[in-house]
Amino acid sequence: MIQVGIVGYGNLGRGVEYAIQKTEDLELVGVFSRRAPETVETVYAETNVYALNTILDFKEKIDVLVLCGGSKDDLPQQTPELAEHFAVVDSFDTHANIPDHFAKVDEAAQKGKQVAIISTGWDPGLFSLNRIMMEAIIPDGKTDTFWGKGLSQGHSDAVRRVDGVKGGVQYTIPSEVAMEKARSGSKEELETKEKHVRECYVVLEEGADAKEVEQAIVTMPNYFEPYDTTVHFITEEELARDHQAMPHGGFVIRSGQTGEGTNQTMEFSLKLDSNPEFTSSVLVAYARAAARLAKEGVVGAQTPFDIAPKYIHPKTNEQLRKQYL
Amino acid sequence: MIQVGIVGYGNLGRGVEYAIQKTEDLELVGVFSRRAPETVETVYAETNVYALNTILDFKEKIDVLVLCGGSKDDLPQQTPELAEHFAVVDSFDTHANIPDHFAKVDEAAQKGKQVAIISTGWDPGLFSLNRIMMEAIIPDGKTDTFWGKGLSQGHSDAVRRVDGVKGGVQYTIPSEVAMEKARSGSKEELETKEKHVRECYVVLEEGADAKEVEQAIVTMPNYFEPYDTTVHFITEEELARDHQAMPHGGFVIRSGQTGEGTNQTMEFSLKLDSNPEFTSSVLVAYARAAARLAKEGVVGAQTPFDIAPKYIHPKTNEQLRKQYL
Repeated sequence: MIQVGIVGYGNLGRGVEYAIQKTEDLELVGVFSRRAPETVETVYAETNVYALNTILDFKEKIDVLVLCGGSKDDLPQQTPELAEHFAVVDSFDTHANIPDHFAKVDEAAQKGKQVAIISTGWDPGLFSLNRIMMEAIIPDGKTDTFWGKGLSQGHSDAVRRVDGVKGGVQYTIPSEVAMEKARSGSKEELETKEKHVRECYVVLEEGADAKEVEQAIVTMPNYFEPYDTTVHFITEEELARDHQAMPHGGFVIRSGQTGEGTNQTMEFSLKLDSNPEFTSSVLVAYARAAARLAKEGVVGAQTPFDIAPKYIHPKTNEQLRKQYL
Repeated sequence: MIQVGIVGYGNLGRGVEYAIQKTEDLELVGVFSRRAPETVETVYAETNVYALNTILDFKEKIDVLVLCGGSKDDLPQQTPELAEHFAVVDSFDTHANIPDHFAKVDEAAQKGKQVAIISTGWDPGLFSLNRIMMEAIIPDGKTDTFWGKGLSQGHSDAVRRVDGVKGGVQYTIPSEVAMEKARSGSKEELETKEKHVRECYVVLEEGADAKEVEQAIVTMPNYFEPYDTTVHFITEEELARDHQAMPHGGFVIRSGQTGEGTNQTMEFSLKLDSNPEFTSSVLVAYARAAARLAKEGVVGAQTPFDIAPKYIHPKTNEQLRKQYL
């Protein structure tokens, strides 16, 4: 059994605790938190919680750490720090800072002779894998990524700041028209604003004018004005009942030409009822890979691009070839 | 530049010749054929054609061979034979015989200290990769594969054998109802016959009775009776004009649950206007991988499960991380 530690215990950490339970080859040693352990309420009562500052005492007991902190403040510090002492995986997702994060994690992992897989998850992660594989196979073509249907935190905040709005959420939804263009083999570049539509579910304050609120939202520069935006008015009860989940997903579509202009289209998509639980499930699959690579003596930072798919599946190579190829 | 040889020159070989032209890092040394070289008409006039029995003279000039023979008679013999002397890739696609083929190719490749990647293509190949990755990520769920819309040779032959039929083709099409079930998170097992519908385009012989022909087709045991089958009558001109291409494709869909019953759905699909040209494009991407692995000293048989995705893309690891992750 692969012995796993969870570092950080928010939505992702909870998702990892659930995901480990669904495997037959991973075992949870415990959750490591900056909070006082006795104040952390885990999903399963039997889960151990330890103070993060005691983690080095667990070096011999843990095969891999799943780092569940945020990409803004936690991971830039935690992944290099812990990669010196443990095999680690993270889901660092600030695209622009990946080369820098990779370099720092690699230095620490090399120093400690550990393996570290960064930027697992789905974007970066599975979507990135599909982007490189599709382009490698059909070099003459165009790849489009669409996000959604998904709850957008920043745009939901913008809706809630409008006068007369008591509460609300915003969903980003891929435009069907743009997706059909992407699938058509057309080389036309699609801008983000034409690739997505925005849907708002808004609770009005008492006495507020629906027409005015709608107008204020759909004309808001940058956030909504460039997009096809729809505003639905709902009750407070509906907001509480129907809009608490964190759905997300999206599409990677590549279409291009082979031979003398033959169209070929490849598509990968996700429809997730919980974005964090899915990311946690990807982290756990790559934690299995990290533990196996560590056993093989692989050292240094890796990304999903560097990991042969067999490493994330629990079965043996023989079983995989026989049953899945 | 990676130096490539093509072995066998039918639809796949021609597709490889086209696909190499679309790359910037692969160069075609020539086509190796059992036919007399002067009788082989290549896509590009400048392509060299050599007799297959001279291939060992090219050991120093070729980095990787792309084997384009059939899985029934050619590859079981050619892949092991050539894997002793060259890095090779094939698209061996008889699922049940893959373990045996792998063992024979591995033995030859180990003997000759070569690398051999078998069963690239899309099923086996890309679909298989998606099956193992999706299952690894969402272990509690169900994977369904749907094929089509695609031309089926065996079923087209069956249609043409019916009395009163002058010509015709048959397309296998995934059932929308079954695909929606697969996406829904339901654990209900779907049988092949309810996952696909069959569409026939038929040219009648003069004087033949359309009703009788239709009845004979839709009630044909095994081939059509278990399926929802539609028969369209067309003219000989329409058959020649609209039904000469070799489209194919399909869907791998996994839906399952994380946490306490949260639905998550992953989907990979292909819509191919030319099945052989696409398979050729996958072969060429894995030929790049084989040449690189050979340079790294990797020896033995491999499948797409064993190949880290970075190996199939022409860019450097640094570029991939910066631009695609």
